Amino acid sequence: MSVPVSQQLAIGIDIGGTNSVFGIVDNRGDIHYRGAISTKTHAKVEDYIEELYQAIAPAIAEVGGKEYIKGIGVGAPNGNYYTGSIDYAPNLPWRGIIPLASLIQDKFGFPAALTNDANAAAVGEMMYGAAKGMKHFIVITLGTGVGSGIVINGQVVYGHDGFAGELGHTIIVPGGRKHWSTGAEGSVETYASATGVRLTALELLNKYEHQDSVLRNFPVAEIDSRVVYDCAVQGDAIANEVYQFTGEILGKALANFVMFSSPEAIILFGGLCKAGKLIMDPTRKHMEENLLPIFQNKVKLVFSELKESDAAILGASALVWELK
Amino acid sequence: MSVPVSQQLAIGIDIGGTNSVFGIVDNRGDIHYRGAISTKTHAKVEDYIEELYQAIAPAIAEVGGKEYIKGIGVGAPNGNYYTGSIDYAPNLPWRGIIPLASLIQDKFGFPAALTNDANAAAVGEMMYGAAKGMKHFIVITLGTGVGSGIVINGQVVYGHDGFAGELGHTIIVPGGRKHWSTGAEGSVETYASATGVRLTALELLNKYEHQDSVLRNFPVAEIDSRVVYDCAVQGDAIANEVYQFTGEILGKALANFVMFSSPEAIILFGGLCKAGKLIMDPTRKHMEENLLPIFQNKVKLVFSELKESDAAILGASALVWELK
Repeated sequence: MSVPVSQQLAIGIDIGGTNSVFGIVDNRGDIHYRGAISTKTHAKVEDYIEELYQAIAPAIAEVGGKEYIKGIGVGAPNGNYYTGSIDYAPNLPWRGIIPLASLIQDKFGFPAALTNDANAAAVGEMMYGAAKGMKHFIVITLGTGVGSGIVINGQVVYGHDGFAGELGHTIIVPGGRKHWSTGAEGSVETYASATGVRLTALELLNKYEHQDSVLRNFPVAEIDSRVVYDCAVQGDAIANEVYQFTGEILGKALANFVMFSSPEAIILFGGLCKAGKLIMDPTRKHMEENLLPIFQNKVKLVFSELKESDAAILGASALVWELK
Repeated sequence: MSVPVSQQLAIGIDIGGTNSVFGIVDNRGDIHYRGAISTKTHAKVEDYIEELYQAIAPAIAEVGGKEYIKGIGVGAPNGNYYTGSIDYAPNLPWRGIIPLASLIQDKFGFPAALTNDANAAAVGEMMYGAAKGMKHFIVITLGTGVGSGIVINGQVVYGHDGFAGELGHTIIVPGGRKHWSTGAEGSVETYASATGVRLTALELLNKYEHQDSVLRNFPVAEIDSRVVYDCAVQGDAIANEVYQFTGEILGKALANFVMFSSPEAIILFGGLCKAGKLIMDPTRKHMEENLLPIFQNKVKLVFSELKESDAAILGASALVWELK
């Protein structure tokens, strides 16, 4: 390739259940081009990739042509780094095992790497974000669900089969809240996700049925993590207790993760982080309380510094710089 | 060094609260010399190292002299691989931070590496035992306490500060049994250790106070994991329930560990393993039940193949082959 390394660019694609966003990124993390297509309108993955190609090809021309592109990184639910396939992703329109990396590689003519969205977020944090220069850290994504990307010795942990890092599905309350999809009882995701915050709010409204709460002004169907947040900052006691409880569960879970891999930092990312101190303070308190003394007051617990709208693209594109 | 690599030998030292055992080991795992000294009789660590030297020096001469020795590996409670020091080990006679690796290196004139006993066990399994050829596995030591050594990408996970892999202290029953030393509630060690088995037996004898049990023939002070085992194999219902319960807790904990690092195998080691199927069957059942489907029926859950009396020496000595 005649283009000097410093001018090479990476394409990052983040495949979500509804939309797929993409961008062309340089090695400093500047996004030179952005775009999006719908994910769910394509029942056949080949049609989806065709539309993706039609959307990205003009962008490649605009940044100077194919010779500037080093490769394509893709973040997708259930994406497996080792095999390059998306395996049985419940929220995507394509069933079974989809060899996405090779489909993209064949269509675009660039090397492609695939991993799940949380692992991509971890690579993005390591390259451009709060984990720059760190060799041991964990990213926890707190969105509709709870995902995680674990980095040890400067490498994302993929494990024996490529599926490592499903910390949202670890059990933190045995016999606790039943997961809406996996059926597991008391997994971290059932509490420390936007979905979990809603469920906790409904439980507490029921538990304190004689106590006033601004939350009661909302139809049950509309009570979500955003409504709970708005009510909490207005000083509503029940909404605040939702965050205390969520932080307690999350903090205990984080303590367990720390005792596994002893990271320098845990980076929280995603929608729930908008709650700021409301979620951070109880999380930190309960994490520290549940750590062995040798781990206490050492782990940096921080929010991601990446803009949420950029992070998915940055994370996916960062995979490209790791391509051999 | 003029001695060919294939003939080089490693000294392995395992420091326990009562005794320290050592051996001189070749790179196939054959132990050419064994010995032991008391740990607890030496209030000063320098005196301890002097006695160790006096005990090992003749062994070195016997195997052919110093030029055959590549180095010394040490397994010790709270041993930190990065710093080479033993930090605040509650069961050793020396207080504070003990720079053990450098003390040994200075005294013996060989390079020395130190880690905790469970990490040493993991290196031993990778080099000589059930994990030969594996790049992703976890060793769980089930003794008086519960220790762990985690291997990812063929490397022991030491984490940011050298203390990673304290899985025995992760919380599996929030608000559960209080740990006799850390004060944490519901950590794995309070249930899945020899100490935990005794406590569970006493709890169940109390819970079923009107039910006959061979266990009631023993003075309370004598009921330990060995007595529980003996009674269980005689068919005692309460003793069998102790193992069911212990396996349930351990299995749930293992499921969480699998969802962290997705290992090829989990290797169980230590005194509790003598219970064989009594502990293995419920552990496996509850591990599988608590795994996400993508992890189910994949992880090899096995007992260590190393003789317990050899394993500590082998694990410590194996550190030497990793020395740069």
